Amino acid sequence: MQLEERTAELVEKVDAARVASRQLALASTQVKNKALENISKALIKRSDEILLANAGDYESAAQEGLSEVMLDRLLLNKDRLEAMADDVMTIAGLEDPVGEIFDAAVLPNGLDISRRRVPLGVLASIYESRPNVTVDIASLAIKSGNACILRGGHEAILSNHALANVVQDAVIAAGIPSDSVQMIQSPNRRIAQEMLTYKGGIDLLVPRGSESLIEFVREHATVPVATGGIGVCHTFVDSSADIEKAVAIAVNAKVQRPTVCNALDTLLVHESIAPRILPLVAKEWGMANVEIHADERSQLILGDYPEATIKSATTDDWGKEFLSLTAAIKVVDSLEEALSHIDQYGSGHSDAILTEDQSNATIFLDTVDSAAVFVNASTRFTDGAQLGLGAEVGIITDKMHVRGPLGLRELTSYKWVIKGDGHVRP
Amino acid sequence: MQLEERTAELVEKVDAARVASRQLALASTQVKNKALENISKALIKRSDEILLANAGDYESAAQEGLSEVMLDRLLLNKDRLEAMADDVMTIAGLEDPVGEIFDAAVLPNGLDISRRRVPLGVLASIYESRPNVTVDIASLAIKSGNACILRGGHEAILSNHALANVVQDAVIAAGIPSDSVQMIQSPNRRIAQEMLTYKGGIDLLVPRGSESLIEFVREHATVPVATGGIGVCHTFVDSSADIEKAVAIAVNAKVQRPTVCNALDTLLVHESIAPRILPLVAKEWGMANVEIHADERSQLILGDYPEATIKSATTDDWGKEFLSLTAAIKVVDSLEEALSHIDQYGSGHSDAILTEDQSNATIFLDTVDSAAVFVNASTRFTDGAQLGLGAEVGIITDKMHVRGPLGLRELTSYKWVIKGDGHVRP
Repeated sequence: MQLEERTAELVEKVDAARVASRQLALASTQVKNKALENISKALIKRSDEILLANAGDYESAAQEGLSEVMLDRLLLNKDRLEAMADDVMTIAGLEDPVGEIFDAAVLPNGLDISRRRVPLGVLASIYESRPNVTVDIASLAIKSGNACILRGGHEAILSNHALANVVQDAVIAAGIPSDSVQMIQSPNRRIAQEMLTYKGGIDLLVPRGSESLIEFVREHATVPVATGGIGVCHTFVDSSADIEKAVAIAVNAKVQRPTVCNALDTLLVHESIAPRILPLVAKEWGMANVEIHADERSQLILGDYPEATIKSATTDDWGKEFLSLTAAIKVVDSLEEALSHIDQYGSGHSDAILTEDQSNATIFLDTVDSAAVFVNASTRFTDGAQLGLGAEVGIITDKMHVRGPLGLRELTSYKWVIKGDGHVRP
Repeated sequence: MQLEERTAELVEKVDAARVASRQLALASTQVKNKALENISKALIKRSDEILLANAGDYESAAQEGLSEVMLDRLLLNKDRLEAMADDVMTIAGLEDPVGEIFDAAVLPNGLDISRRRVPLGVLASIYESRPNVTVDIASLAIKSGNACILRGGHEAILSNHALANVVQDAVIAAGIPSDSVQMIQSPNRRIAQEMLTYKGGIDLLVPRGSESLIEFVREHATVPVATGGIGVCHTFVDSSADIEKAVAIAVNAKVQRPTVCNALDTLLVHESIAPRILPLVAKEWGMANVEIHADERSQLILGDYPEATIKSATTDDWGKEFLSLTAAIKVVDSLEEALSHIDQYGSGHSDAILTEDQSNATIFLDTVDSAAVFVNASTRFTDGAQLGLGAEVGIITDKMHVRGPLGLRELTSYKWVIKGDGHVRP
């Protein structure tokens, strides 16, 4: 895309972000934390202004007939603002990755070399209805020394602008340029497309939202992207699995929070253990109102199990991310069949084996090509906070740069720093 | 680009590479090293076959009127084959990055977590006339457990196919699938374009060649890429520089190997030291036949310096990668002016400050946004072997995933490995 074709608003904001990013890259941890603290306080202090804007969005969305789920995603209230304010302070408490030195060495010739973490530059995000993403990404960007350009969903436009205003005022008060965080104003959809090809302007683009948004970005972006958040998660119950642990994990992975990407979608069960474990899982899932899509062999075992809703699985169920209290069950003949099913239908997010057989665990961990592979644990642990990274932008299923949780460190690049004393190359 | 539009040869090779990549990902270091050893030996043993093919390419290229420089790049001979064979053994001797564990921890809840390096999958490269790139990239791919798809220049097509045959036979003999290394046969230019958008088929694309090739890939690729190799390298002589060291570095950076990307292009000199150092640099550069493109202020100092060819610099000289015995000189008033010049004209590759002032060195290292930043050393050290990485695919000036030398470790991704004992998320 040629420069002259780009929308003026985007060009201005990218230019301003690049200038701001250079100042922000040199900001101290203290200054960045002060900015975050200011943001956190302002979210509470200016909650009336934010909630008024949000009420405007909510009213329009309700009139447009948005679903209950979408309206709930859009909604802000005092509790949610407090949670956002707490999340910002969590980020302030995380270690600053910028300036970290690694691979340091003094070479035999005396050259002092190291790699030093530096911010990427300008982070961009395209996302949908949740206005908390605005504060979330802005805070992670600031802490990692990156300027950011945000493009939220049109249904949250008033909320996002109110939040962006609050954030900008808060960072200025800490001595950080306000252009460090900029929200796209124009509802023109073309701007989002232009962002995808803004080489030299945007250093990393992270989409957050529906599968169709993620797919669109994957197909069309020529700027570096980190994509993911689509989790078709498998848990394979091997023949040697501990029944009690396996039932507890299957329940946790499906039920604890069914609407998120690391929740269980398909339970694969070795035929030799299926008769013992499936009724127990069906009972627990039934009590939790899980709808089961069972293949023929598991239906034979479960029969017309009284305590669960059991339907016949169709081929559409394999590789489906349910994001709800629905799960597919398939009985397999072997570990190999489970691996092959995961390879064919998985999304490379999170997959688990439940087994007491160390050798099968090793084969599973080696073979499954996913961001997170588990033995005897719930896939719900694929999460920045759970894995000790603190906050995250999302769970990435790409392989370049970052895989799994996209945390603060993953928002950085590095430079080689080489110090000599008149060194020349022989 | 839709699947049905893709050229059959590419689709077949990508599919085969994906299958091969899964086997290769699990290959032991020993097997991979055996494959490399076989390649190294076969390059010598089958040199007649390779040189015959190369003679065919050379003859066609000479008839087509390729320049001397291009013909030299294309040429293979016994010495060059021996050097290639040695390079392959160097790669065999490097540490295998696959399987390396990092960020290992046992969390308070008892979960055993770590990140484990895994191959990226399928590496692709588009390159130009040098046939040694074929063996170079194939060897680095094998050692890092990646399958590769190679698309060399049409002028080297016979040489590349001979080399690819040798490599394939050698890897099969070690028990690695021959589809691990595949060379595109068709001269259809469209295939290269299709490679740029082969999402899900190609995990990393590395172009090697002219600036126009690199730019084309940067603009159009939607698959992950690592690009670079374009170095507009600055060396800034600060007012406090040690004259003797500075002259030696300026000479080394420009003269030691002028045709490569980390060679000096522009010498920036602080006005307070310019009268003392410029005549010394001009004398040494003159003796090495360097053509100097001097700005007005440096011309005033150098006058009609007898021992060097001095021309007036034009604005085209700033930001130019000379790749030859030509250098630009500019006198600046301050460190700030030097920083601003580098920011405006640099390519983010390698830039140096020569100074005895620690505070200025720090400002330079912090501010210059390049893959490698130097104090008191020649930019010629931006090189995988010089920095202790061993062999490299190239020098990357992008910021995502890898910056600077693209070595074996940078050809890997990682997966999170999480081991529990019935762990569920509270």
